[in-house]
Amino acid sequence: MIESWIPLDGDGDFSIQNLPYGVFSDAADPTPRCGVRIGDFVLDLKALSSSAAVAESLSSLHSCAALFAQPYLNGFAAAGRTVHRNVRRDLQRILDAKTDLPQVLEKNEVLRQQALVPVAKVVMQLPVQIGDYTDFYAGYHHAYNVGVLFRGPENALQPNYTHLPVGYHGRSSSIMVSGGSIKRPWGQILPSPGAAPITSPSRKMDFELELGCIIGSPNALGEPVDVNRAEEHIFGYVLLNDWSARDIQAWEYVPLGPFNGKNFGSTISPWVVTTDALEPFRTEPLANETALQDYLQEAQKSVFDITLSVSIQDDDAQPTTISTTSSKNLLWSFPQMIAHHTLGGCPLQPGDMLGSGTISGTETDERGSLLEMTEGGKQDVKLTGGGGTSRSMRFLQDGDSVTLMGRCEREGLRIGFGCCHGRLLAASER
Amino acid sequence: MIESWIPLDGDGDFSIQNLPYGVFSDAADPTPRCGVRIGDFVLDLKALSSSAAVAESLSSLHSCAALFAQPYLNGFAAAGRTVHRNVRRDLQRILDAKTDLPQVLEKNEVLRQQALVPVAKVVMQLPVQIGDYTDFYAGYHHAYNVGVLFRGPENALQPNYTHLPVGYHGRSSSIMVSGGSIKRPWGQILPSPGAAPITSPSRKMDFELELGCIIGSPNALGEPVDVNRAEEHIFGYVLLNDWSARDIQAWEYVPLGPFNGKNFGSTISPWVVTTDALEPFRTEPLANETALQDYLQEAQKSVFDITLSVSIQDDDAQPTTISTTSSKNLLWSFPQMIAHHTLGGCPLQPGDMLGSGTISGTETDERGSLLEMTEGGKQDVKLTGGGGTSRSMRFLQDGDSVTLMGRCEREGLRIGFGCCHGRLLAASER
Repeated sequence: MIESWIPLDGDGDFSIQNLPYGVFSDAADPTPRCGVRIGDFVLDLKALSSSAAVAESLSSLHSCAALFAQPYLNGFAAAGRTVHRNVRRDLQRILDAKTDLPQVLEKNEVLRQQALVPVAKVVMQLPVQIGDYTDFYAGYHHAYNVGVLFRGPENALQPNYTHLPVGYHGRSSSIMVSGGSIKRPWGQILPSPGAAPITSPSRKMDFELELGCIIGSPNALGEPVDVNRAEEHIFGYVLLNDWSARDIQAWEYVPLGPFNGKNFGSTISPWVVTTDALEPFRTEPLANETALQDYLQEAQKSVFDITLSVSIQDDDAQPTTISTTSSKNLLWSFPQMIAHHTLGGCPLQPGDMLGSGTISGTETDERGSLLEMTEGGKQDVKLTGGGGTSRSMRFLQDGDSVTLMGRCEREGLRIGFGCCHGRLLAASER
Repeated sequence: MIESWIPLDGDGDFSIQNLPYGVFSDAADPTPRCGVRIGDFVLDLKALSSSAAVAESLSSLHSCAALFAQPYLNGFAAAGRTVHRNVRRDLQRILDAKTDLPQVLEKNEVLRQQALVPVAKVVMQLPVQIGDYTDFYAGYHHAYNVGVLFRGPENALQPNYTHLPVGYHGRSSSIMVSGGSIKRPWGQILPSPGAAPITSPSRKMDFELELGCIIGSPNALGEPVDVNRAEEHIFGYVLLNDWSARDIQAWEYVPLGPFNGKNFGSTISPWVVTTDALEPFRTEPLANETALQDYLQEAQKSVFDITLSVSIQDDDAQPTTISTTSSKNLLWSFPQMIAHHTLGGCPLQPGDMLGSGTISGTETDERGSLLEMTEGGKQDVKLTGGGGTSRSMRFLQDGDSVTLMGRCEREGLRIGFGCCHGRLLAASER
C-alpha cells in the first residue's frame, strides 16, 4: 500500500488512497477554486494543474486546469470517470513517498509553497452548484422504524417500499456546506393532536444522517441510465444532514410529501469522496425478498460499508456520540436509485445530489434521527457531555451542534469523509 | 389607452400594455439573448438597450444592457420591480404611436432593422434558468375533484388544505420551453388494483393546466417574505403544463409525494408576463371559511382573472378546445404561496418557479386535467377535430399535442400569454 511524503493528519481520514475533491478559498486568494485533500493540507488544483512542472509531465492533470479554476466542481464532475481515474493516478504519482517525479511537487519548493495550503488556513465552500436535489428513503430500518411509529408494526412499510426506491424532490437553494448555522424555523404546527394549527417555531427539531451522492456525467432528457452503467454517472459521495422539523412535517405532508419541514436547510460535508476511493469497501446490500423489476437488477455489489456516526454538542460541553451505524443499512444502492430516477427519462445534471434517506441500524444507538431514537419524542437520549452539563434530550435545543462523521477502515487502509457540522440557532423574532 | 406604431398581431395578445419578456435566438445571431414581445415582433433588448440612441435618452433601459445580453432573464429578474417598472415605462415611451422619441426606434431605420425581429424568424428559449421548481396545489376545485375520486366527497380535502398552501418540490432539470416534445415515460405501474407491479410505458398520460410564477428578487436564507411584500419578489407569470403519468404517480406517491409520475417533463410558455401588465385584472380570490394564520393575511387582492384554455390536437386533425377556466379558481394567491414557502426561511432565488397547481372550475369542461374530466378514466372526452378524425379520449395518445392558452380581456384591453405547446411522442423501445 503506497504512502505519501505528506504526513497523514491526526484523524488519518485523508490518506493518499482517499484524495477527495472540494472547493476552498484562503486569505491569500479569496477566489474559490478546486482542491484535493491530503493529510492536513489542501492541494490547490488550480495552481498545481496550471503549473509548468505539471504541464511538462502529467497531461491528464494539466488538461483539467480550466476546470479546477472554476468556483465549483461541476465541470470536473462532468468530465467523467475516465478523466477522474486518470487525474487520481497523476495525483497519487506525485504524492507517493516513492514518486518518480519529485521535481513536480515534493522537491519543487516554489510550487509546494503556493499549492500546498494548510487546512487550518482555508475556508471550505459548497463543492458543487447543486441544480436539483432528490432525497430517497432507502434506509430500510429507518423506513421501518418510522412506519412503526405512525402505523404500527403490521403496516410499517408501504406496499411500494420493497419494489422501488421511494424518493422525492428536495430543495437545493438551502443546501449549505459544513460549518453553517441554521435558525430554528417557524411553521404551522398542531400544538396537540386535533387542535387548531398555530404559527410557531418548530418544537421538534431533528437531524437526519444521510449519504449524499453527487452526479458527474449527465443523461439527456428521455434517456434512462442502465443500472449497471449508473456508477459511471457518479462523481462521488458526501455526508448529508437533512435537518427536519417533525411537527411542521407532520401537519403539512399529506398528500404531497415533506416541504417546509425540510426546506429551511440541509448541510453537506465539504469533501467529495470518489467511488475509486471507496472501491475496497463494497459489501452485500440488505436482502430484499421482493422480485425486482429488470431495470433494478444489478450485476455487482454497489453498496459500501461506511461507518457513520452522529454526535451532539451542547453550547459548552464536549460532544457525545449518540449513534453509530453503517451505510450498508440501505435497501437500495445509489445505482438503483439512479436507474429508477431516470427510468421515465428525467435528466440528471452534473452536480445534482441524491440523498440516501436516513440511515439507521436495528438498535436504538444505531439510529439516524432523534425521531427514531426517542420513539417519536417519548424516550430520552442522554448527552454525557462534560463539566456538569449532562442532560437528557428528545429533540434539538437552540445552540446544539450536530456533527456527522463517516469512515471506512480495514487492514490499515482508511478512507474518511471528515465531518459535516452544523449548529441550530434560536428562531428569529417575528 | 395608448397604442403602438407597431401593429398588433392577429391574436392581439401582445399589445403595448403587455410587453412580456423572453429569450430568443435567430439565424442571424444564434446566441440566445433577451427580448420583449410586441405584436408580431420580438424587440431585441440586447441590441436596443446597448444602442447609442437609447444611451442618449433612456437611462433605465440602457442601464440593463449587460443583463439583456445574458442567455437567461435571471439577471434582469433579480434587478427588482423598480427597475422593471422603469424599463417598462421606457419601452412604452418609444413604442407609443405618439412617442416623443421617434428618433430612437420608430424613425431609426438601422436600429429598427436590427432590433425588431419578425416572430416567425426567432427560436424561443427557456426564459430563465430555473434553480428550484415548487409546485403548489392551490386550485381548489382540482383538489376537491381529485379528492372525491380518491376518497369520496366526505373526505375530499385533507385537513390541512384550507389552512396552508400545500406544495411540494418539483424537478427543474426537465422543464422545457413551449414547442418541445416529450416521450411517453416508462415506469412502474400496477396493471390492475392489487396486481404485482410491472415496468411499462405509462398508460394514463395527462396534462395539467397551471400558471407558473417566476421569482425576481431573492430572499436570504432564514429571512421570510411578508405576504404583503411578496409581489415585490415576483418577476412575472407563464403558462405551465405539468405533464403527469397518473399510473406511475398512483403507485409511487405514498408517503413522500409525486416523483417519476411528474419529473419526465414540464412545459412552460416562452413569454413572462409581468404583474404590471396584469394589474387591471385583479379579482377576489375564492372564499376561504378557515381563519387564516397572520402570515397568510393579505391587505390587497392578488389573484388575477386570466382566462385559461386547453386544446388537444390529433396528428392530422384541427385542435379541439376541451376546457376553459380562469386563474381566479385558486384558493391561494402567489403572494400567499411565497409567504408560506419562506416562513421557515427557505431562500427563493431569481428564476425559481412556483406552479399554482392544476386550475379547474366547477364544471366538466372547466377542468384542468383529463384525470378530472374523465373522472379517473371512466368518462369520454370528445375531440371533434376535422376531416373524419373525431375520436373519444380518456388519456393522451402518442402524437397528441396539448396547447395551453391564457388571456385577460376587458374594455378593449387585452393581455395574452401566447401559447404553451407540447407533443407527446411514443415511448422509447427498451
